[in-house]
Amino acid sequence: MGGNSFGTLFMVTTFGESHGPGCGALVDGCPAGLTLGIEDIARELRRRRPGGSGPFSARNEADQPEILSGVFEGKTLGTPIAILVRNQNQRSGDYDELKDLYRPGHGDWTWEAKYGIRDHRGGGRSSGRETVGRVAAGAVAKTFLSRGGILIRAWTSAAAGIQAPEPGETGFDYEEAGQNPLGVPHREIAEKIFEKLEKLKKEGDSAGGVVTCMVTGLPPGLGDPVFGKLDARIAAAMVSIGAVKGVELGKGFSAASCLGSNNNDEPIPVRIGEGPSLGGLPWELPLGIPALAFKTNHAGGVLGGISTGAPLEFRVAFKPVPSISKKQCTVDRQNTVRDLVIHGRHDVCLVPRAIPVVEAMTALVLADLILLNRGARV
Amino acid sequence: MGGNSFGTLFMVTTFGESHGPGCGALVDGCPAGLTLGIEDIARELRRRRPGGSGPFSARNEADQPEILSGVFEGKTLGTPIAILVRNQNQRSGDYDELKDLYRPGHGDWTWEAKYGIRDHRGGGRSSGRETVGRVAAGAVAKTFLSRGGILIRAWTSAAAGIQAPEPGETGFDYEEAGQNPLGVPHREIAEKIFEKLEKLKKEGDSAGGVVTCMVTGLPPGLGDPVFGKLDARIAAAMVSIGAVKGVELGKGFSAASCLGSNNNDEPIPVRIGEGPSLGGLPWELPLGIPALAFKTNHAGGVLGGISTGAPLEFRVAFKPVPSISKKQCTVDRQNTVRDLVIHGRHDVCLVPRAIPVVEAMTALVLADLILLNRGARV
Amino acid sequence: MGGNSFGTLFMVTTFGESHGPGCGALVDGCPAGLTLGIEDIARELRRRRPGGSGPFSARNEADQPEILSGVFEGKTLGTPIAILVRNQNQRSGDYDELKDLYRPGHGDWTWEAKYGIRDHRGGGRSSGRETVGRVAAGAVAKTFLSRGGILIRAWTSAAAGIQAPEPGETGFDYEEAGQNPLGVPHREIAEKIFEKLEKLKKEGDSAGGVVTCMVTGLPPGLGDPVFGKLDARIAAAMVSIGAVKGVELGKGFSAASCLGSNNNDEPIPVRIGEGPSLGGLPWELPLGIPALAFKTNHAGGVLGGISTGAPLEFRVAFKPVPSISKKQCTVDRQNTVRDLVIHGRHDVCLVPRAIPVVEAMTALVLADLILLNRGARV
Amino acid sequence: MGGNSFGTLFMVTTFGESHGPGCGALVDGCPAGLTLGIEDIARELRRRRPGGSGPFSARNEADQPEILSGVFEGKTLGTPIAILVRNQNQRSGDYDELKDLYRPGHGDWTWEAKYGIRDHRGGGRSSGRETVGRVAAGAVAKTFLSRGGILIRAWTSAAAGIQAPEPGETGFDYEEAGQNPLGVPHREIAEKIFEKLEKLKKEGDSAGGVVTCMVTGLPPGLGDPVFGKLDARIAAAMVSIGAVKGVELGKGFSAASCLGSNNNDEPIPVRIGEGPSLGGLPWELPLGIPALAFKTNHAGGVLGGISTGAPLEFRVAFKPVPSISKKQCTVDRQNTVRDLVIHGRHDVCLVPRAIPVVEAMTALVLADLILLNRGARV
Repeated sequence: MGGNSFGTLFMVTTFGESHGPGCGALVDGCPAGLTLGIEDIARELRRRRPGGSGPFSARNEADQPEILSGVFEGKTLGTPIAILVRNQNQRSGDYDELKDLYRPGHGDWTWEAKYGIRDHRGGGRSSGRETVGRVAAGAVAKTFLSRGGILIRAWTSAAAGIQAPEPGETGFDYEEAGQNPLGVPHREIAEKIFEKLEKLKKEGDSAGGVVTCMVTGLPPGLGDPVFGKLDARIAAAMVSIGAVKGVELGKGFSAASCLGSNNNDEPIPVRIGEGPSLGGLPWELPLGIPALAFKTNHAGGVLGGISTGAPLEFRVAFKPVPSISKKQCTVDRQNTVRDLVIHGRHDVCLVPRAIPVVEAMTALVLADLILLNRGARV
Repeated sequence: MGGNSFGTLFMVTTFGESHGPGCGALVDGCPAGLTLGIEDIARELRRRRPGGSGPFSARNEADQPEILSGVFEGKTLGTPIAILVRNQNQRSGDYDELKDLYRPGHGDWTWEAKYGIRDHRGGGRSSGRETVGRVAAGAVAKTFLSRGGILIRAWTSAAAGIQAPEPGETGFDYEEAGQNPLGVPHREIAEKIFEKLEKLKKEGDSAGGVVTCMVTGLPPGLGDPVFGKLDARIAAAMVSIGAVKGVELGKGFSAASCLGSNNNDEPIPVRIGEGPSLGGLPWELPLGIPALAFKTNHAGGVLGGISTGAPLEFRVAFKPVPSISKKQCTVDRQNTVRDLVIHGRHDVCLVPRAIPVVEAMTALVLADLILLNRGARV
Repeated sequence: MGGNSFGTLFMVTTFGESHGPGCGALVDGCPAGLTLGIEDIARELRRRRPGGSGPFSARNEADQPEILSGVFEGKTLGTPIAILVRNQNQRSGDYDELKDLYRPGHGDWTWEAKYGIRDHRGGGRSSGRETVGRVAAGAVAKTFLSRGGILIRAWTSAAAGIQAPEPGETGFDYEEAGQNPLGVPHREIAEKIFEKLEKLKKEGDSAGGVVTCMVTGLPPGLGDPVFGKLDARIAAAMVSIGAVKGVELGKGFSAASCLGSNNNDEPIPVRIGEGPSLGGLPWELPLGIPALAFKTNHAGGVLGGISTGAPLEFRVAFKPVPSISKKQCTVDRQNTVRDLVIHGRHDVCLVPRAIPVVEAMTALVLADLILLNRGARV
Repeated sequence: MGGNSFGTLFMVTTFGESHGPGCGALVDGCPAGLTLGIEDIARELRRRRPGGSGPFSARNEADQPEILSGVFEGKTLGTPIAILVRNQNQRSGDYDELKDLYRPGHGDWTWEAKYGIRDHRGGGRSSGRETVGRVAAGAVAKTFLSRGGILIRAWTSAAAGIQAPEPGETGFDYEEAGQNPLGVPHREIAEKIFEKLEKLKKEGDSAGGVVTCMVTGLPPGLGDPVFGKLDARIAAAMVSIGAVKGVELGKGFSAASCLGSNNNDEPIPVRIGEGPSLGGLPWELPLGIPALAFKTNHAGGVLGGISTGAPLEFRVAFKPVPSISKKQCTVDRQNTVRDLVIHGRHDVCLVPRAIPVVEAMTALVLADLILLNRGARV
């Protein structure tokens, strides 16, 4: 297990180097009988494509997926679903000068220190292109989740040091996030960030940012204590995305300076389907267990590692894109110090393109937990 | 797999309810031939015991471990190492009134929503006592790591809203962290926090905090891209600890507002054993790969999910202890709103006792990765 | 993962050396809400105890199990169930002379060749005593299965070269198998085998044999193609038992010389609960799928790796006990040829004591597959 | 995990339905730096292709593999190796009449009973075509093993009820097995079997057989007790192949009627590289452990679940091909009894084509164990 698999029952293995023949994913364990079409996958892949203009990479590939197995007459068979996306727009020549250089902020050297070999073209497997497989597999998981009314929504909550409003704050507009190329839930702030990114592009620099994700419709009971907690899985899933440097659930780091009396979320009784439920969807509970909601959701929808039924909320921090065209100092294979100016087609900020990746990884965690949860009780 | 196992090759399963017969861990995959004594485990367990005074829980157990298997004449056999710690000082009666109540901030209700049953006494398996198994197993991993010169050091970097200095900042004193009961690397700040916690105890309230962890001596090359990244595993390990709400690697969330040009760590050539290496320990690299260090360590010792040889650095946010004696509102099993005042023996802030747990989980991640890494090259 | 775990969802890890403090098992993933008492486990453990007389080992231990976790007020919690059986009647001195010798037919040398160390006392972990953990864990699985009407029955179908009748043959009497100490389903043949074993004991020799196992009440649909087939899992489970040298499903090796036209089992339609069903228990099928039985059961209850609902049938071959008191030739740690006469308390034939182990392993396979099967369809 | 993965460190997942777009395998965990070319895979795939004449299926596909990832400039990268073989010669129309029928001896109905859906064309994923992925992945494993001098050789030791000589018996000729289309190590017997199969073809019937496999050059120490034994893994690997009904290691079922005194293999001291070693290849042992061989090899190269260094030997029983053109009785989807005469292109005996599959599965087991074994000692 070279670390390219994720999940226990809904198990995904991704494959592919940035400039090899193709990228993709193999999903083993997707339940049989799910209606799944190629467009379910293609739609998500389009969301992660670069815009091809502005502060985004000019590499522009159609990324048309092919389902090689596991689907018959529009339904999943219960067998492995192999999805292949051919690489098309590789300009490997762009990377020739990087063959013997270790780029700052990239995994070039650590990869070689581990394996003794790497495909230097476009970062090989440590390229952002690796997320094609994640998004394709996540699309299958999303299709499965949507049957149960589970909705995953992520957006850019900060980029280039500029904050967007959070849900509940003035001006937060989730619809807007789907309409601007930055995925920012506030039009003016999106424009401000866009300008900042364009400026950075001219300066040959780059920016990081934060993605916030919220999942609604989640039934209570998902997550396996002790090590298999819902939030532990989310954390692993998020930090497994390249460039992620932090994750927080609910109030996150700010909870560390709260008092217990203002951080605890007090339970309130609900009838399912009624009242102030922060969950909102009908779900079944074991006999004799009352349905609860909570006055607040500082916990971000998880208690004891198990979903509460309130929205799952977390934030993910991305570092700035390490590929910058400003001159940097580095070392080459001959152990000589070298100046480096990176050319090629790079995003100034990868946060907007990371949104579907965050959603995909979230979907993979949840699809797996839903299946695992079927074994919780006799 | 109910989620109680951690690791692939160095695999640990913990067991035990807070007020059942005992707690412990089963370590499968510890390499044979490791010198391991009961004191290696007992020492770590003493570090997680409550102080029994001041702002700490008065529950005070000897926590004497017994090795049931896997060790012969002071050496590991390569067979499963079962470690048992009997529970002794249970005052289950303290919990009778909680039998039908769902405490705010605890997993009481989510546990029932999942399993339809729970051991209410002391939180059952979602109790902090579950960490006995983690710390015992972590002690085995630490013993394995220490052979290779790998040192794991964690401390309290913030508690009750009061920050301690970071390494490199004025006044940071790691030795001091081992001498005060709060694990704070600065004597005056430790005293200030202690006073604040005593005050909160009187008020019936509680506090959270932050643990920082630094690992030195780590060879480069540990971590399996894509999903098995070193940092992704650390994130999962940390968030699997009860009460953790966030984790950040290296610069973490602050990296999100940096520019690429000031966040990238520029490589510098080193001869192993010489010069400004942030790693410091001798390690072997594949033929033809130069040894590198980095001018800075914003990445926290990980690039592309693989260790760089520089210190691994991360921070973990803990929410306030949810058990407070202030009056709270909650719901009972009959779906009735109830007032709740929690008695019993609780910590005001669990951060100091979480230090050995953070270290143990880190050790488990690293021991596993060291074994996994043996398969990286032909 | 040192290979001491079995199962994916109903996951068991066993631990313990023959002459260490104790043996046992950790069951992670047993569904919550199962009624489980200590006697459910103790009963199975008594079945694997040596008779202490006749051709059986004189080592006689009470083998009283203790449940350390996972059960509360007589019901499983969904948390790990740790079961400990203390070793009591160790006469380690018996083994002193074997410390530096490699016994023929045992794993003494291979163990050292792998780990560089072994606990020589009684074979350490490669002792038959290791099956204590399997039987204890299997008892939990059996309790789970019995809720669904699934019955596992194994017996001695051959020992010391003497065959007992198979089901359907004249004289086969399953009740009898439970009444003679050899587990043979035919009284006179049991006596004949007993005499042969007593004779071998006097000669200082030993015998092998065959265990047949039949499972009734199994629903159709269990087993995961491709690698996770029901029969593949049974084969792994059986060959994982010490001394097993072969396994066959249904007609087994004799199928290899049949024609397709007489080996195929022709399907017949049934109404569930009616008619000539070889299965017999009510089970649910997906909508639109007819209920079938089969005219014959040459397949042994498995087609395409999935249970058919007909009885699961397989046979397991055990080699003769390798510990014999006849003089043998071997090699010692100093690489010198040595004569060896093994003393100590050994069974002449382990087949009767293997019956509950075969049943336990079968139960572990089936419990796991029943949980895995819950994820087969949307 | 729908059961389509095999192995822990050298992990393979296969995919593909018989008449879908393609079949293949994803190998995750192959060590980096292995020289691997497309021809290494293509060569093994040619061995499993039907002869297209005589008693073999007339379906004849080029089966040209494509490596989609994981190999760069002729060397493995340590990343997942995805191998795709397009399906070409599907005549799905052949199967139209089988759409609503459950063929005797096939998994048609059990598959539907589990998943509620199946791809009926050519058996879908329960087709023999599924072994394309196994053979492709096995080719990677074989390439890895051959570096260490490990050779896997399988042949047809019985078919249609006719036995071929075993190694050591008069007339056994391994070279011959590679030259006749049946893989029988004796020319005249091969011809006799061929005639018998042609006769069965005319009669519309089919035959089973036995494959024997021998591995030389295996170092001692491979295999993880307790559940991860070398022989247990081999058993699982073999029985996971469609149509396999039994497996025996070494003397197998005949050991069950032996005495301990004639079944035990007595150890003899060797200097590595010298004398009567049944192993033959140089290997390293832990310090202080003598090198051993054995006077006989009844154990088939495994003791205590760990390789002894002597050849690994086992036999695998295949049932007759269930697709016969003789009239059979079955049931259809409407639960009606139906007569069935199967047309289409089927092998009369699949044993010869199973030889490379047996070898591939053996290679997968061994490659995984070699990597796992790297973690056995500190």
